[in-house]
Parts: sequence; structure tokens; C-alpha cells
Amino acid sequence: MPERIGKNTLLLTSNPSVIGFAGVGGITEGEGPLSEEFDYLFDDDEAGQSSFEKAESLIHKEAVERALSKAGKSKSDVDYIFAGDLLNQCTGSTFGIRNMNIPYVGVYGACSTMALTLSLASIFVDSGAANCAVASTSSHFCSAERQFRLPLEYGGQRTPTAQHTATAAGASVISSHVKNTPCVSAVLIGKIRDLGIKDANNMGAAMAPAAAQTISDFLSDTNTKPEDYDLILTGDLGKVGSALLKELTEKDFGVDISSVHNDCGLLIYDMENQDVHAGGSGCGCSASVVNTHVMNNLKNGKLGKVLFVATGALLSATSTLQGETIPSIAHAVLLTGGERE
Amino acid sequence: MPERIGKNTLLLTSNPSVIGFAGVGGITEGEGPLSEEFDYLFDDDEAGQSSFEKAESLIHKEAVERALSKAGKSKSDVDYIFAGDLLNQCTGSTFGIRNMNIPYVGVYGACSTMALTLSLASIFVDSGAANCAVASTSSHFCSAERQFRLPLEYGGQRTPTAQHTATAAGASVISSHVKNTPCVSAVLIGKIRDLGIKDANNMGAAMAPAAAQTISDFLSDTNTKPEDYDLILTGDLGKVGSALLKELTEKDFGVDISSVHNDCGLLIYDMENQDVHAGGSGCGCSASVVNTHVMNNLKNGKLGKVLFVATGALLSATSTLQGETIPSIAHAVLLTGGERE
Repeated sequence: MPERIGKNTLLLTSNPSVIGFAGVGGITEGEGPLSEEFDYLFDDDEAGQSSFEKAESLIHKEAVERALSKAGKSKSDVDYIFAGDLLNQCTGSTFGIRNMNIPYVGVYGACSTMALTLSLASIFVDSGAANCAVASTSSHFCSAERQFRLPLEYGGQRTPTAQHTATAAGASVISSHVKNTPCVSAVLIGKIRDLGIKDANNMGAAMAPAAAQTISDFLSDTNTKPEDYDLILTGDLGKVGSALLKELTEKDFGVDISSVHNDCGLLIYDMENQDVHAGGSGCGCSASVVNTHVMNNLKNGKLGKVLFVATGALLSATSTLQGETIPSIAHAVLLTGGERE
Repeated sequence: MPERIGKNTLLLTSNPSVIGFAGVGGITEGEGPLSEEFDYLFDDDEAGQSSFEKAESLIHKEAVERALSKAGKSKSDVDYIFAGDLLNQCTGSTFGIRNMNIPYVGVYGACSTMALTLSLASIFVDSGAANCAVASTSSHFCSAERQFRLPLEYGGQRTPTAQHTATAAGASVISSHVKNTPCVSAVLIGKIRDLGIKDANNMGAAMAPAAAQTISDFLSDTNTKPEDYDLILTGDLGKVGSALLKELTEKDFGVDISSVHNDCGLLIYDMENQDVHAGGSGCGCSASVVNTHVMNNLKNGKLGKVLFVATGALLSATSTLQGETIPSIAHAVLLTGGERE
């Protein structure tokens, strides 16, 4: 049963388990440092499809099917799938899962989607509304570039603060508690923060305040300190946003997270040798990092307690053209390693 | 506590109450038969804003604030707001609620959004994850036309099967059970159905199979018949989709709903005298009809048991241009009148 603590945190008292998880990626992700940990890497960014959007749907489907297979579950075992993505009307998700015959809750959280779907799936399992639920999301560099910025053929130069949308997807299968399995122990759904950033090529800066607020709220609600975690993992602030986050949490909340902080956008690529500007982004970035590297290390005991904080910039191409600022949000999920035998 | 019954239905055993509800509309909605029941009618489709998108956000905000005020709640009393809409990246919702400082769960369900947000908010309250939650959605004829079809200035002729996106919003405030108040007694989250319809000007036909499946599943899970309901209310199939729905439920599931069926898209406008083609549509259509006419009649005892089934066509302008069919979904919410004194 979910138990409300502090102002805004839910303890999931039954500790729902992540019984299956998978992350898949594209070419650039396969050239990064997590290459070996991905469950599957497409060697063609179109994934054999006739459009980037269809490719994204296929990649999404692949992540869900691999996570289910690793969980030993079939589609008919799943009570709900929570999914969403960056594409207009979330078609990356809907077209990816449309033939799965699973009750579907569409969510929209931009790049915070993995934390949002993971939260909802875990709350459903913890409350008994579901026995088994899937959380998934995806993104694709090419479908995102042409939707949010410019057609790839235009060959526009990107600014150094711009992030590289990952061509990737991740999925988690949540079920009631089992031993030696990563667990979702608490969640915090964030509030929208908008400090007036208008530069759609600097999402890290727009999202950092939301992440700082959510991390501070979670630490305060649970009466914990950064040192109580093996990792406070944001996704995806990149280089610019991560620096800002550390500054903001220190300045506004008096909390120094620098010794335990990392960011999925910095982990997924080789920041020295890959041409990814300020780092990775896109729903699939944190989704694939969490559902490979992080879950693997929670499972094998290298990590014990990870606060995963995914951030989303809730803009659209239209809102940017209309001169709007970028409302942002961050959701937190406490992942723990479960008991060790 | 949510209790799973049948294959896919959740009984909300605490009977969460809709302690506040409001629907607002625009000019065309004010000229329709429910005019008197709307909480507020804008007499300018731009609502004094500089764009249709900004107008939609304002209308969304208005519905939420009016529902909260009628519930006697302030924003700080609300644990979660569940919201979404048709605009790319759900900006109708996010920009409407961005200053409310309420934890925000973004959802995407196209025109099924009111049933989806209402389901999630009610499940959260029923499970103890929230004490008070808001469910809301909006749509705007002008922002939808230019996003999904053609710029208004083009003056394109619409087909007779096309539906008219309502300029409207609706919001419900859900809290633990109180007497003499409409309740959410059960919910069913639907599965995606795609029978291969490709005509984006005939959404009713695309969505009818999803509605038929959801209604049939709900009746079967709860072991009830159409006659057990005062109203089975779809939103929004319009004229074409409603006729198809009745045919499909009879043919495929052996259930005759014709004596108790109505559709929000047929209720919101005067189908004889308003130029709305096959009827209303858009997230705001069912949201405003349910949060005015239906809730009012549940509250005053004229209706006792309403199965609200909102349908969504999960297409995007891009998916249509790429020759894709239209995946559709329908979510059901059982609304009851609560005890009568």
C-alpha cells in the first residue's frame, strides 16, 4: 500500500520488484561506454523501417518484448502498460505497442517519462490495482530533430549547450516483491518549475531547477542526506544542466550532491570522443541507462540505493515559436537492490 | 482499495467522490443545448489571448480553478493533478496549470483523456496514494484544426463524417467518499484496437470498435446488462461512430445498448441546427459534458448509474501522412449518484 510521507513522497510499502528490464539502442549508443550492457543494438537508425517514426515504434516494441522475456512473462500476464514518448501524440509508444492487447495508460512527461511510467506502474502494483505492469518509453535522434528543431537534411549546426537525443528505448516489468531483485521503494511526482528559460537549445538549464526542487523535496520528506545514496542519478541534464543542478541544490537548498551525482546523459556517451555536444537526452536516454547499467548493478549488488530523478522539458515546437518559456518537471524514483542472499 | 474483478475491471471499494466539477466552453458550445449548464462560457474563441494555444491553456486553467472552488479546495490541498490534451506535447495542460504548484502527472489519451485522468485520480484516492486529486482536460477547435488538419484561413470544406472539436475544458476534484455526491465506483482501462481505418476525417468509425470492446468487457467483468445503467455515455463518437458502436456491440458481443446509449458529441451541440457535421469531439467535449450535465444529474438524483466510456484516436498528423491506420482506445468509468438522503 502506498503511504504518504512528508509533503509529497509515497513510500511503496510492499517494495514492488523490477522483475524484468531491458534497454535497446542505435548506432551512436552502441559506440558509447555502455555498449556491452545494452540488450540489443540496432545497426541501422531506420531499423529497417520506412520512416524514423516507424523505427522509433519498433525500438520501443523491442525494449518491451525483451523486458517481458527476461521477466519470464507473456503479454497476457500484463495488467497495464504505462508508456509515452516525445513524438506528437505519443505515437512512438502507441504504434509500438498497438498489437500487444494490453490495457494501456498513455503518459506524457517528455524526458521524465521513464520515472513517471515507473512510478505509476509501481504504485499500481503496490496498491493491488495490478499484479504485473510494464513501464516503457523511447526516443529517436532523427524523429526528435525534425519534430523539435530542423530537418536533418538542412545540416544545421547545433549549439554547444544542445543535447543529443538518444535513439533508444527502455522497459521495466513491475510485479510484487521477490528477493534479489531491484525494487521501487518510493516515488515522488514533481511539480512544474519554470524559471523563464526560453532557449530550446539549452534544455539542461531549463530542467535543472525542477530537478533541484524534486531532489530537495525527496531528501526532506524522507529525512535523508545525499550520502545515504550510492547514486543520485538525473536524466537527462547533460553537462550544462548537471553543473547548474549542483549549484542550485547547494545555493537554494543547502544540499551538496556532488559526491554522489551522475547523469544518464553523461553516462550513455563518451563525452570526450563522441560528437554529442552537452550529452544525451530524450526519453530513451534515461530509460535505456536505467534499464541496463543501473538495474544490472542493483541486481549484482554493486549499487544498493539509487535515487533516479528524470527531468522533462514540457515545451513544444509551437510554444517555442510563440515565445513561451520552458516549463519543466522532475519525478523521483527510489530504486533499491532488494535483499541480498 | 482497488479490487480487480473479471479480466480487466477495478472496483474502487471506497467509492471516491467527485466533490467538485466544472465545465467551461466557447461560443459554439454556448449556442448548444447545454448552454445553461456550463460553469462559464467564453464569448471570444481567443479568450483574450494572442494565440489559440494560449487560449486553450487559459480555458483549461479556468475549468480547474472553478472545479476547485466548487469543491471548497485550494491548490495547496491537491496532492496530484492528472491532465492531458490533444496539442503536441500536451501544452494545453502544462501551460494551463504550470503556476499551480501541484504535483503533475501528464497523460495522453487523445479524446479519451477525461476518462483516463478520472480513472487515475480515483485509483490514487482509493488506494490512499492521494487524499485529493484533480482530473482535467481541454480542447480547442482552432488549435486542433490547424494542428491535425488545415489552417483555418484555408477555408477547407469538411466531410460529413468529420467531427467538430469542442472549444471546452472540464475538471473533476476527487476525494474520499462523502454523501450525496457523485462517486467513481469502478474503472476499466482499455486496450488499443485498430481495425485498419485510415480516414482521419472519420474518427467515429476508427474509435467505435474500441468502445464496443470496452463496454462489452465492463459488462462481462461486472456481470451486468445495459438495462442496469441509466446511461451508457460514449465520448465522442458522434453520429457515425454511435451508429457503428450499436451495430458492433450487437453483432460482435450480442449486447443491445440502444435503449440506454448516448454520446457526448451528440449532446453538446444541437445536431439539427448547428453546423457541426457528425457532432462534437475533442478532449474538452466529453470533459465538459460529464463535468456539467452528467455530474449535475448524478448530484440531483435524475441519474443514478452512468457508464462513461471515453474514446481516443491515437493518431498524429505525421502518422496519417505516413499512411498509417488509426489505433484507438476507450476507457470506462462507472459514475454513481452516491447515497440519497
